[in-house]
Amino acid sequence: MDEALRELEAQKKRAALRALAHVESGMTVGLGSGSTARYAIREMGRRVKEGELTHLSAVASSEASAALARDLGIPLVELSASGVDVVIDGADELTESLDAIKGLGGALTREKIIAARAKTFILIGDERKLVGELGERSPVPVEVIRFGWRATLADLGELGCEVIPRQDDRGDFFVSDNGHLVLDCHFGRRLRAHELAAEVRAIPGVIEHGLFLGMATHAYVAAPEGVLEFARRA
Amino acid sequence: MDEALRELEAQKKRAALRALAHVESGMTVGLGSGSTARYAIREMGRRVKEGELTHLSAVASSEASAALARDLGIPLVELSASGVDVVIDGADELTESLDAIKGLGGALTREKIIAARAKTFILIGDERKLVGELGERSPVPVEVIRFGWRATLADLGELGCEVIPRQDDRGDFFVSDNGHLVLDCHFGRRLRAHELAAEVRAIPGVIEHGLFLGMATHAYVAAPEGVLEFARRA
Repeated sequence: MDEALRELEAQKKRAALRALAHVESGMTVGLGSGSTARYAIREMGRRVKEGELTHLSAVASSEASAALARDLGIPLVELSASGVDVVIDGADELTESLDAIKGLGGALTREKIIAARAKTFILIGDERKLVGELGERSPVPVEVIRFGWRATLADLGELGCEVIPRQDDRGDFFVSDNGHLVLDCHFGRRLRAHELAAEVRAIPGVIEHGLFLGMATHAYVAAPEGVLEFARRA
Repeated sequence: MDEALRELEAQKKRAALRALAHVESGMTVGLGSGSTARYAIREMGRRVKEGELTHLSAVASSEASAALARDLGIPLVELSASGVDVVIDGADELTESLDAIKGLGGALTREKIIAARAKTFILIGDERKLVGELGERSPVPVEVIRFGWRATLADLGELGCEVIPRQDDRGDFFVSDNGHLVLDCHFGRRLRAHELAAEVRAIPGVIEHGLFLGMATHAYVAAPEGVLEFARRA
């Protein structure tokens, strides 16, 4: 691993550690997906193992995160009607006002289902993820029902983006943990995110999209000079 | 079968026949689900077999309708980006302004995916389905992701309804053709349907709901005195 990459990984880890300060014994914690979230899960596992955190339970947003949590001895539960105390998750793009694009890992629907029921929703990432306006770099991932996907793709394209069905490593359709397809919507410009979110949501065949607007309460963004903190204004 | 029931079935068949006047050779037709839609599919199959309709292709909204179409020799295709020419489908509740509640058969998501891409969308039913305002009798069915369903149920309940997970004949969860659960939302009162539709759609975990607003172009409603016709005002 080269020096820049090693430094980046060290940064992600620092952001994850800052987020973990919100996790206390007895809490139910939502586990995110993706590389930065994995640092948080590993550290949580260490604290559980060493008895620093007790009576913790966790809800996993992906099969991969569930497997990691099981390996580490973190007790998993189903999401209940009372939701979770805190979620720690990564972001693909993030603004200082805490709007985000998520889902490049393909777990957006479960991530949003959990995050919408969290008292505290913390996003973590490195400074490459920080943007002035959403859409500067990332496509907006949209999870869709396979039935009629060509028609759904056409309707998404009408919103002014190039729509690319996500593929797996073998060139087949990527299939989410829920059994659905993901269409990546490349706008290549700054988004009017709230308006777009409603338009996407209204298309029959769409299950969920990767715009997480007004949901996060905190963000920790790792930069060379240290971890930048953002919190939602009350 | 008693006389009243026989008369009801004859009425449904008359409504289905009226809808079929919109189907011409060479068209792509969306096949609905449910008992009234089955009359339309059977008559379509007869016309295909006897050569009255040629070069017809059909998109089925449920596995059950697909099986019936195959039995009858109606060629099935996938929904393409260009949509379908005409859909003939049943409704659980229907207003004279052509808003409807659908989905008591559990095929609401595929039905809506097809109907949203139809040039002509015809609802058929008998007069028991006709209401002044949606919500007078039927619950609003909502298809949801199984993951986190208790939290989704709780959020739906916040909208002011009693939410009952749909069960199959054996008392297990009903599972849709898409692999999801259906939660029946009983409001027991007239609905502000457009507002409600947007609120339901915004809940993470919701895939689709059974409110079909501003979608149908025609309705044929069978009554003892004959088939009532309704058409969307241009």
